[in-house]
Amino acid sequence: MTAPATEIDRAIDRSGLRPVGAPTEVVVARDVAEVQETVRRAAAAGTPLITRGAGSGLAGGAVAGEGAIVLDLSRLTRIRAIDPVDGTAEVEAGVITADLDAAARAHGLMYAPDPGSVGISTVGGNIATNAGGLRGAKYGVTRDAVLSVDVVLADGSLVRLGRPTIKGVTGYDLAGLVVGSEGTLGIVVAARVRLLPAPQRVATASAFFATLEDAARAVAAIAVSGARPAVLEILDGATLGAIDAASGTALRAQGEALLLAQTDGFGAAEEMAVVLAAVAPTATHHEWTEDAERAADLLSARRQALPALERIGRPLIEDIAVPRSRLAEAISGIRLIADRHGVPIFVFGHAGDGNLHPIIVVEPGEGDLPETAVRAADDIFALALSLGGTVTAEHGVGRLKREWARRELGEDAVRLHDEIKRVFDPLGILNPGSGY
Amino acid sequence: MTAPATEIDRAIDRSGLRPVGAPTEVVVARDVAEVQETVRRAAAAGTPLITRGAGSGLAGGAVAGEGAIVLDLSRLTRIRAIDPVDGTAEVEAGVITADLDAAARAHGLMYAPDPGSVGISTVGGNIATNAGGLRGAKYGVTRDAVLSVDVVLADGSLVRLGRPTIKGVTGYDLAGLVVGSEGTLGIVVAARVRLLPAPQRVATASAFFATLEDAARAVAAIAVSGARPAVLEILDGATLGAIDAASGTALRAQGEALLLAQTDGFGAAEEMAVVLAAVAPTATHHEWTEDAERAADLLSARRQALPALERIGRPLIEDIAVPRSRLAEAISGIRLIADRHGVPIFVFGHAGDGNLHPIIVVEPGEGDLPETAVRAADDIFALALSLGGTVTAEHGVGRLKREWARRELGEDAVRLHDEIKRVFDPLGILNPGSGY
Repeated sequence: MTAPATEIDRAIDRSGLRPVGAPTEVVVARDVAEVQETVRRAAAAGTPLITRGAGSGLAGGAVAGEGAIVLDLSRLTRIRAIDPVDGTAEVEAGVITADLDAAARAHGLMYAPDPGSVGISTVGGNIATNAGGLRGAKYGVTRDAVLSVDVVLADGSLVRLGRPTIKGVTGYDLAGLVVGSEGTLGIVVAARVRLLPAPQRVATASAFFATLEDAARAVAAIAVSGARPAVLEILDGATLGAIDAASGTALRAQGEALLLAQTDGFGAAEEMAVVLAAVAPTATHHEWTEDAERAADLLSARRQALPALERIGRPLIEDIAVPRSRLAEAISGIRLIADRHGVPIFVFGHAGDGNLHPIIVVEPGEGDLPETAVRAADDIFALALSLGGTVTAEHGVGRLKREWARRELGEDAVRLHDEIKRVFDPLGILNPGSGY
Repeated sequence: MTAPATEIDRAIDRSGLRPVGAPTEVVVARDVAEVQETVRRAAAAGTPLITRGAGSGLAGGAVAGEGAIVLDLSRLTRIRAIDPVDGTAEVEAGVITADLDAAARAHGLMYAPDPGSVGISTVGGNIATNAGGLRGAKYGVTRDAVLSVDVVLADGSLVRLGRPTIKGVTGYDLAGLVVGSEGTLGIVVAARVRLLPAPQRVATASAFFATLEDAARAVAAIAVSGARPAVLEILDGATLGAIDAASGTALRAQGEALLLAQTDGFGAAEEMAVVLAAVAPTATHHEWTEDAERAADLLSARRQALPALERIGRPLIEDIAVPRSRLAEAISGIRLIADRHGVPIFVFGHAGDGNLHPIIVVEPGEGDLPETAVRAADDIFALALSLGGTVTAEHGVGRLKREWARRELGEDAVRLHDEIKRVFDPLGILNPGSGY
């Protein structure tokens, strides 16, 4: 029996991974009690439970196959409270991240984590993957913003983990443990998150380079300049070409690499001058602006990168990070891998964090990926580890990166993971087959 | 047999708590191998192992009684590497925190966490307690600076937990779990920590108030001003008097409460103007400076608070935090508690985080605390929880706050703690009787 189209949609995420078989049931929870009831049923029957928010995940963390129950939290959309003096918000898991930020801005505050998917992904999904984002270079990742989480445990009980206040060290950091656990330790239904003062001033710059390696060298120069950009994005020529084709921009004509930098705060303009002084020796040309509209245009080009590549073909999205001092080596290594396997690899990412997204684009279609693409991806993982890096900086392990994640963690750490997983989920019903 | 003085010293910390009996053995580890060997011996014999750094802890986390082995890491003092481009340092557990910061400053960087004890406490001790500090209002706590930890587990094996890069989501955040676990999950022998650009400019202000509640109201006003001070400290009149007596300053004559604020970054002066505009309606007078020496004087007064109280008597140091919006209520509540029990309570703390240190000072001496002091402390804990706060913001639970910590956490969370503790330390040899 073919499931209705919406149920197929709810069995997959944005990773391109297709499940074997169809889930038994899709529950679109209307409240926390319904989440608890669903978990209790799954626990009683020993049924795998795949929790999802918007389904915008890129690692196959929310892919549900034969026999699973899909638990969709996207309708838990209430922002329960915002307290400007405390600098906190209480939100349900299904709130779209950009909506939370907009609600905070109405009070002169911001919700700092801003993954590329900020307009479509949910706070709960961001918590599940410990999502990063463009402002991560200065403001950190989702974990840094989460004070406490309301979690439905594998037995259906509801518990609040974490601290009520900005600081707090009572007990282990179990909220931090749940953040990034990809739905394998419990189901986050709500969270108390930190809000920060929205910057009073923002300066945004673009700098073009003759090579991507030159851009990487500029990143290293910025790192020791004394400036701390809030945003520092890198895009290669191929990605610029794809954005041009999708958006009618004319970026690629200006260089083989683009850095986008943003400084913010009371000294934004002066800090930007320091950034540009660091960039100047290697850039072919650069410009900067304090005009909000012009800045939004620049950053919107960056946010178009992935959609633009999705128009070209089927993207296999990698998400490595390396120490910033190895960025140029990582980029050269990726180029060699592309040549070796004869596959196109587009590179962009959050350079300030050493986080690159090498995207292998293959012919559109479903089914298994071409062998060359798989081998190129493997080589990219190996490259990241050989440079002292990680196989996933912000997208998560999901179902796609398990083998490499375990290689990165090592046997001793994996054993601790297994035992902690058993503490939280003794029956193994929470998102089995996904995470670490 | 009386133990040598140094061994008595190594059985206690700065909490004032005295152990029952003396430890069997004190091991001052010279390297990681010796730590591993000691842990293996303790595991084989089932002997409690109390790990310590500088012994500057304030919650009784490093108090060793009858039959315990004390494992002293204060000689693991190597800063193994600093990489300015990566913005990271690799340090051993016994490095004094201020020494790490000084080493970073030589590269134009800083190590942001700066507990009041920064000049005497160790990085390992700071990690054990997830220490906060003066700059926490803007830069967060130790957890925010730790990328990975090298941990000797309870079986003597050495494992690295965490991520090598600034960002990374491979697996659960086990480094974050170990930070703040107070020596109960493993023994942190080294860490990779994040360094940040040292601020190019710093502005420091003092503002005096007629009442402490007025100062708390100014904190709320700053919170919604759009400014984000790096430091925002509050001190009450009694504490100012004690500092005056100890240091020859003349602070108390100027008011019944003092706020110390510091802004930093390229727009430090302009941001300070915003802070002072928020403070002006309630302050009796205020001044600010960009002069480094004058700023150091102001902050050094703050760092003298605890030593000054230690001169007066035996301090019972509390460490609550409340949501910033409840700060004035917390302060009024503490005053009522002092009156009710007839004990002097001095109040200072990190107001930007809602973190207050109410200090009950009793007659010098050892032995049990007076009943009035214990009851006042209990009332302070209850007050913190009733205001939606925490019983320990940054000092840790140790042996002194276990009962209240468990009340704060609740049964379900305590059960998870117990099970996680068993995963890491099945024999219960790691700092038994301390933490959560």
